[in-house]
Amino acid sequence: MDIRSKFERLGTDAAPGQEGRQQAGGIEPLLRGGNIVGTPVDFSHGDVDAFNPTPGSFEVFTAGVESGGKQAYTEYRGALGIREELATRLAAFTEAPVDPRDGMIITPGTQGALFLAVASTVARGDKVAIVEPDYFANRKLVEFCEGRIFPVQLEYASVEGRSGLNLDQLENAFKSGTKVFLFSNPNNPVGVVYSSDEIDRIAALASHYDATVIVDQLYSRLLYSRVDYAHLRARNANSEKVVTIMGPSKTESLSGYRLGVAFGAKDIIARMEKLQAIVSLRAGGYGQAVLRTWFNEPEGWMTRRIQDHEAIRDDLLGVFRAAPGIDVRMSEAGSYIFPSLPRLSVSGADFVRILRVQAGVIVTPGTEFSPHCENCVRLNFSQDHASAVAAAKRLTALVERYRA
Amino acid sequence: MDIRSKFERLGTDAAPGQEGRQQAGGIEPLLRGGNIVGTPVDFSHGDVDAFNPTPGSFEVFTAGVESGGKQAYTEYRGALGIREELATRLAAFTEAPVDPRDGMIITPGTQGALFLAVASTVARGDKVAIVEPDYFANRKLVEFCEGRIFPVQLEYASVEGRSGLNLDQLENAFKSGTKVFLFSNPNNPVGVVYSSDEIDRIAALASHYDATVIVDQLYSRLLYSRVDYAHLRARNANSEKVVTIMGPSKTESLSGYRLGVAFGAKDIIARMEKLQAIVSLRAGGYGQAVLRTWFNEPEGWMTRRIQDHEAIRDDLLGVFRAAPGIDVRMSEAGSYIFPSLPRLSVSGADFVRILRVQAGVIVTPGTEFSPHCENCVRLNFSQDHASAVAAAKRLTALVERYRA
Repeated sequence: MDIRSKFERLGTDAAPGQEGRQQAGGIEPLLRGGNIVGTPVDFSHGDVDAFNPTPGSFEVFTAGVESGGKQAYTEYRGALGIREELATRLAAFTEAPVDPRDGMIITPGTQGALFLAVASTVARGDKVAIVEPDYFANRKLVEFCEGRIFPVQLEYASVEGRSGLNLDQLENAFKSGTKVFLFSNPNNPVGVVYSSDEIDRIAALASHYDATVIVDQLYSRLLYSRVDYAHLRARNANSEKVVTIMGPSKTESLSGYRLGVAFGAKDIIARMEKLQAIVSLRAGGYGQAVLRTWFNEPEGWMTRRIQDHEAIRDDLLGVFRAAPGIDVRMSEAGSYIFPSLPRLSVSGADFVRILRVQAGVIVTPGTEFSPHCENCVRLNFSQDHASAVAAAKRLTALVERYRA
Repeated sequence: MDIRSKFERLGTDAAPGQEGRQQAGGIEPLLRGGNIVGTPVDFSHGDVDAFNPTPGSFEVFTAGVESGGKQAYTEYRGALGIREELATRLAAFTEAPVDPRDGMIITPGTQGALFLAVASTVARGDKVAIVEPDYFANRKLVEFCEGRIFPVQLEYASVEGRSGLNLDQLENAFKSGTKVFLFSNPNNPVGVVYSSDEIDRIAALASHYDATVIVDQLYSRLLYSRVDYAHLRARNANSEKVVTIMGPSKTESLSGYRLGVAFGAKDIIARMEKLQAIVSLRAGGYGQAVLRTWFNEPEGWMTRRIQDHEAIRDDLLGVFRAAPGIDVRMSEAGSYIFPSLPRLSVSGADFVRILRVQAGVIVTPGTEFSPHCENCVRLNFSQDHASAVAAAKRLTALVERYRA
């Protein structure tokens, strides 16, 4: 494959955050009625002005700058002292040991960790099991590495108390030679959490078929009432086959510092560091210091943050469930909600553009997460509460207006 | 190729900055005499405590944090306002237009820019011309992309007033189908600058053979007395085939913020942004603000910085030229010096380990830059002046001690 063909498959035009580069041209003939005014809301990512970064994070960054060269030039896998602090806290959180010296790497965001993990485990032609729907970059990472995607459906709409992962499909993937399984838990975009039983089944299958599992647990701290969370790394018989990825960009609103971590399988972490050495050298040195605030927030701060998000979730659920033809599963964790819309007279892609032009509402089209989700949109509701609810109402009003 | 074999070729054990992970075990039987005491110096990278970051950089970062979400979540290619400021200054510096909207991307360090540029131009099996010696990651990037390296020798030791690039070899590379040429100017590790005539010849060859040129100009601001610098992008007939890479990590000591830029060919920049979206999303949002200080330093600051480095260079040249059997070309730019050592009774790799153990001096082995440079070592002399000179003298003393 030549380089142009390879990149033609790597489209990012509809990716979250790129709306500023999109042209809205050509949709005028499709428009019905006038604009609906209201505070614009960009649901493509969380609003760090509504939910501020962890208290003290800037002060810790400042101390990092003041400590000078030691903090500017760390090992490629990050400063050992910081890895040691984090290892203890991450082991307690995930209920399994973390080796700070050889079993952990600090990366530029969780995106950096995902890239390194996939590129360190997937060679050309390797089969990779990918959940549909799941985080938009997962498929693209496999495509960039010239792996082959084996899709596994998440039948989230038809079940309760579990994610709905089709475990038969996952086993078929392993049976037909898939050696890597990559998934997010809580799921992005749906916001469902895999049940304890599902995690045990995934662990058993992965062990039986000797597969590597890369699990993106970015939102695993933001759990709503009465939701239990099982850490795969504590359930998998072969810990050298599991890489767990987390970071403080979302719940903790530290995205501006670009920080993530991957921990677990030492062999894979070693390859990830080799690759980081030629991809970006290291996560920004001064920024690494900010990780000292992580899992170390002021008393009660995280509880309050979760409550605030849960209140927004409840209100958005109310708005969507009151709208005829909109189906939505309750988010159990994280700040995503993924309603499916009724049949419209315009395409899903055009509706997303119309929403932006007529209602000042930016959402991410469902096709970024699965080829089967053309009628869904993803909203990151880590936003100003009142603005988010008002924007969701504008969305449902436009659904009515464009209903087929 | 399976993933393990692929990564076995990507060694980083001897890479600059990784000395903390190396074991010095096994060299005791080789040691002669005792340790030579002195302030330890790590020549593997510049010392940002000796040469501080640009004045005002931290204040501009702080303003970035205070501006909140707008700065935390930029386009993947970086904040447009910052690109616009930079485009004007980079166009003036490189003597050719820069398009801020479509012809520039902000990356996590120049390492990030190099990775994206190579991975966006080199597909599996493509031939890439690589200078020997040149920056250690260049070869590894091509290997990671499964390209094929066509080496071109830099015969720097035998010429004056030019870099010594073997232009016949470069033309042979193009003749035999090489479509990408990647090189650093000033050259890392030698510190030589390509002459105006050499740049014109490279531009003419690249145009004639329709090849893409990626030029790493990281050190192009740190030019010593009586050195002229030619910007390839101002000389190449086809600007859509040239990508120029720069960043403020070295001369400006802003490495802790991880910032680089690539500018030029719009098609390639567009592919680089697609790839950045899955590799790290964007350069750290808050950190991008620091670029506002770049090419915008206080009056006289850069002149002073260059003079300070030139004074260290002169003293190190004096130390090395006084030592029998050490050959060294004068660095014309940047903060690297690349002496070749006489025949020793230990291998180059062991001598580097001995230097660290017996003299507290960390250097980078020449083999990181070329398979033909086993007898060379690279020093980054952006260090405390007196400590650097004393450390260079300890190095020459150990050369005497281990002479074959």
